[in-house]
Amino acid sequence: MTDELKTLKNKNLLGMADLDRDETELILDTASGLKEINFRPIKKVPTLQGRTQINLFFEPSTRTRTSFEIAGKRLGADTINFSASTSSLVKGETLIDTAKNIEAMVPDILVIRHSAAGAPYLLSQHLDCPIINAGDGAHEHPSQALLDIFTVREKKGKIDGLKLAIVGDIAHSRVARSDVMGFTKMGASVVVAGPSTLMPPEIERLGCETANSIDEAIEGADVVIMLRIQLERFETSPLPSLREYSELWGLNTKNVELTAPGAIIMHPGPINRGVEISPEVADGRRSVILDQVQNGVAVRMALLYLLTRRTTQNE
Amino acid sequence: MTDELKTLKNKNLLGMADLDRDETELILDTASGLKEINFRPIKKVPTLQGRTQINLFFEPSTRTRTSFEIAGKRLGADTINFSASTSSLVKGETLIDTAKNIEAMVPDILVIRHSAAGAPYLLSQHLDCPIINAGDGAHEHPSQALLDIFTVREKKGKIDGLKLAIVGDIAHSRVARSDVMGFTKMGASVVVAGPSTLMPPEIERLGCETANSIDEAIEGADVVIMLRIQLERFETSPLPSLREYSELWGLNTKNVELTAPGAIIMHPGPINRGVEISPEVADGRRSVILDQVQNGVAVRMALLYLLTRRTTQNE
Amino acid sequence: MTDELKTLKNKNLLGMADLDRDETELILDTASGLKEINFRPIKKVPTLQGRTQINLFFEPSTRTRTSFEIAGKRLGADTINFSASTSSLVKGETLIDTAKNIEAMVPDILVIRHSAAGAPYLLSQHLDCPIINAGDGAHEHPSQALLDIFTVREKKGKIDGLKLAIVGDIAHSRVARSDVMGFTKMGASVVVAGPSTLMPPEIERLGCETANSIDEAIEGADVVIMLRIQLERFETSPLPSLREYSELWGLNTKNVELTAPGAIIMHPGPINRGVEISPEVADGRRSVILDQVQNGVAVRMALLYLLTRRTTQNE
Repeated sequence: MTDELKTLKNKNLLGMADLDRDETELILDTASGLKEINFRPIKKVPTLQGRTQINLFFEPSTRTRTSFEIAGKRLGADTINFSASTSSLVKGETLIDTAKNIEAMVPDILVIRHSAAGAPYLLSQHLDCPIINAGDGAHEHPSQALLDIFTVREKKGKIDGLKLAIVGDIAHSRVARSDVMGFTKMGASVVVAGPSTLMPPEIERLGCETANSIDEAIEGADVVIMLRIQLERFETSPLPSLREYSELWGLNTKNVELTAPGAIIMHPGPINRGVEISPEVADGRRSVILDQVQNGVAVRMALLYLLTRRTTQNE
Repeated sequence: MTDELKTLKNKNLLGMADLDRDETELILDTASGLKEINFRPIKKVPTLQGRTQINLFFEPSTRTRTSFEIAGKRLGADTINFSASTSSLVKGETLIDTAKNIEAMVPDILVIRHSAAGAPYLLSQHLDCPIINAGDGAHEHPSQALLDIFTVREKKGKIDGLKLAIVGDIAHSRVARSDVMGFTKMGASVVVAGPSTLMPPEIERLGCETANSIDEAIEGADVVIMLRIQLERFETSPLPSLREYSELWGLNTKNVELTAPGAIIMHPGPINRGVEISPEVADGRRSVILDQVQNGVAVRMALLYLLTRRTTQNE
Repeated sequence: MTDELKTLKNKNLLGMADLDRDETELILDTASGLKEINFRPIKKVPTLQGRTQINLFFEPSTRTRTSFEIAGKRLGADTINFSASTSSLVKGETLIDTAKNIEAMVPDILVIRHSAAGAPYLLSQHLDCPIINAGDGAHEHPSQALLDIFTVREKKGKIDGLKLAIVGDIAHSRVARSDVMGFTKMGASVVVAGPSTLMPPEIERLGCETANSIDEAIEGADVVIMLRIQLERFETSPLPSLREYSELWGLNTKNVELTAPGAIIMHPGPINRGVEISPEVADGRRSVILDQVQNGVAVRMALLYLLTRRTTQNE
C-alpha cells in the first residue's frame, strides 16, 4: 500500500488521531531509510540544506528539543531554538501573535511544545507553515508514539496482533493517548492500567481496554510501556504513598515474568528508578528504553523530511 | 548617490544618529537585494560562510535575537548566542571585560543588546570587532528603525514628504528615538504624541513635532507607528487606568479613519491587543505589522553583510 | 618524541592527571597548527563536518561553553547545547540516565561540566562516547590548564625550568589543581599560596611547593597565575575583609616587581578588578589574560580534533 503513498495528507502532524495506517507506515519506512545516517562517520546529508527549522518550546524540554535539533542538523537544516521563558509571551503577547511573528521570518517548519492541550491545533488554524506537535499538555505527543511504534516494529518485526500494556498515570499522559491511538490503528490490542485516580474517564473510547492491576494488564503482553510518575503529584502526601505506588504499580523482576516470552519493556523517559520501574528491569535484557531514544532521532528526521515545506512561498 | 557608496563609514552601527541618508539608502538597497533569499526553497547563501556572529544579549529578547540569528544563518555565518543570565556577569566581571573576552575568541561581528543606554557605544570604544546595537535601554534600536523605513519605502514607494505619527510611551522607547532620527533624515515629517508623563523633555530637538492627542497626531498621517505600552507601568494602578489609556491613546477602527487615504499602521511588537491597538486595526488591511517582522530579517541580513569583518586580523 | 605519537591514549580527557608529557605536547602542537584558522577570513575547515558535539553543562558557564562551541563550529562540527537548568534532571532522573539518553542520540563527543567532582569520570565508566571534562567541582579543568601551558610556551618559548606561582583560593580551584599537575609534568616548578583557610591539605602531594605570602610565592617567578576569589565567600563577612584580601593577597603594580624579568601574568577569568588583581596589572604589558582566552579556542579545537570519534559505531 505504501508503495504509492509518497507524502502525508496534512501539512501538519498534530497528533496520532490524524494519521491513518498508510501514513504511519510511510513515516516508519522513511525513518528506517534515514536511520543509518546516524551511524555514519559523517552524520549529515544535504536533504534539508537551507531550510529553517524553529523549535518553538513554550514548556521546558531539553530531551525532546535536543532530539529534534539533532534530527534537523543531520538533515542539513538550520535549527533555531525559541524558548518561551525568555520570550515576548511574558510581555503580554498572545500565543497566536508570537507564532505569527515567528512565521513572518519564513521558517520551513515549526516544532511546537506547549503546556496547553490543543495549542498546536490552534496555531495550525492561523499559520501556513507546517507544524509538528512535540507535546501539548495531556493531549498528544505523536513523535513519541511513532518512535515507540518504530521500536516495536524493529524489535518484534510487526505490530499487527501484538498485545500491549500501558501502565501508570494514564490520565495525565499525552504519551499514553498517542500510543493507544497509534498502536491500535496498526493492529495491536492495547490494555491500559493505573491507579483509579489516575485513569481518565472513557479512555476505552480511544480503542483500548482497561485492567485493574498491573498484573492483569501485563499478563501475556508482548510490549509493556511504563509511564513516568510525576513525583510532584506525591509532594503533598507522605513518602509511604510513593513506596505504595511502587509496590502496587511498579514493574519489577517478579511481575515482569508475567509478560509473554520475548516481551520488551519500554518507557518514554525520564525514568524514576525504583518508582515505576525497578533498576533491574530498566537495565535488563528486555528493556529497549535507549533504543527508543536512538530511534527518536530517526523518526524525527523522517517527520522533518516529510513535512518541511519544500516550495517557494511568499506570505 | 548610492551608486558610489559601497560601504558604511563606520565599522559599527550604534544608532540612527550615526547614519546619513546615503548610508541608510545603501542599507535599504542591500536589504532589497537580499530579501528574496528568504523566499527561495534553499534559503541560504555562502556570503558569510566561516564568519562568526555572536549575539551578546545582556537583556532577554527572543524575537530580535531570533531575527538576527536567522539572518546570519541564511548568509551562511556561524551564529552563537551568549546570554547574560548564565554569564560571568553574575560573577562580578565588568561589562568591558566580558566583551573583551568574547572578542578574544575572534568573532567577525557582535550583535549587542543591553538594558543600559550607551552600553554598545562604551564597548565600541574598547573593541576592534564590529558591533551592531540591537537595542540599548531607552536610547536606540537602529535595526528596528531601518526595518520600519524599509517597510514604509516598500509600501509607499518613498519616504520623502510623508507624514508619520508615533504614538505612545515616547519617553521609554528606543524605537521612537531611532525612528524619529531615521525618518526625518530620509525626508519625512514626524509627529509624536503620548501621555504627558510618557513624553520626554525636548524631544523636538530630534527633529520631530509633538501633538497633544492621538487624533491630532494621526490626522492626515501616511504612516502611524503605535508603541507598545509596558503593562508593568500600570501594575501599581487600578485596571481602570489601563482602560483609560486605551480610550485616550489607543488606535481603533474609529480614529484610524483620521489618517490619510492609504495610510499604513505599524507596531514594533509585541502588541498588547485592546490596549494600544485594537484587534480590528492590528489585523486590518492597513496593518503592515507582520511585514515589519519579515523585513526585519532582510534588513538584518544587510547589516550583517555590510558590517562583518571580511579581512584577516590578529589582535 | 611527539613525532610518533599521533593520538591520545585515552578516549576521554578527564583531567591533567591522565596526560603524560608526550600527550600534552601532542595537544599543544595540534593547537599550534590549528590556531591560525581563527585568523582567516573564512574561519572554518571541514575536518569535523557531520560530527555531533554536545555541550552537556550541568553548571552554568557561558564563557567555557562559548569557547568549545566556537571551536567545534570552526572545525565544521554540529554543536548542540544541553543545559541542566531546563533538563530532565529536575524531574528526578539520575545523571547517568540523562547522559546515557544523550549518548543514545549518537553524539561523536560530549563536553561535560558538572558541579560535582568526579562526575565526568563517573559518566566515562558508563558511556562509550568520548568525554571532555570542561570542569568538575573543585577537581579538574584540563582544557584550562592546557590553554595556560600553551600560552606560557608561546610567550616564554618553553615550560621546562620555569618558575610558576599560583595565588589565591587554591582549595576551591579546579584550575589550580590542573595547572599544578600539568605544569610540573612539563618540567616547571610550581609554588602555590593563599590564605590558610583557602589552602587544601597535602597540596604538595601534587608536586608543588607552598609559600606563606604572595611576595614569597611570586619572587623570581616567570609566570604568575592569579585565581579568581569567589565574592560569595565574603558575603557573610563585612566588606573590610574583601579589602583585606586585596591588600594581603592581591597582585598590584608594587609586588609585581618581585617577579622575574619578562614575567607574564595570567588569570583564568572572570577577573575581579581591584580584588585579586589591580586594573593596572590586569591591563598591563605583562598581562596575557586575553591571550589565554584566544588560545583557549585553539586548544579546544585540538581536543575536539584529537578526541572526536571518527569511526562508524552502532551501540
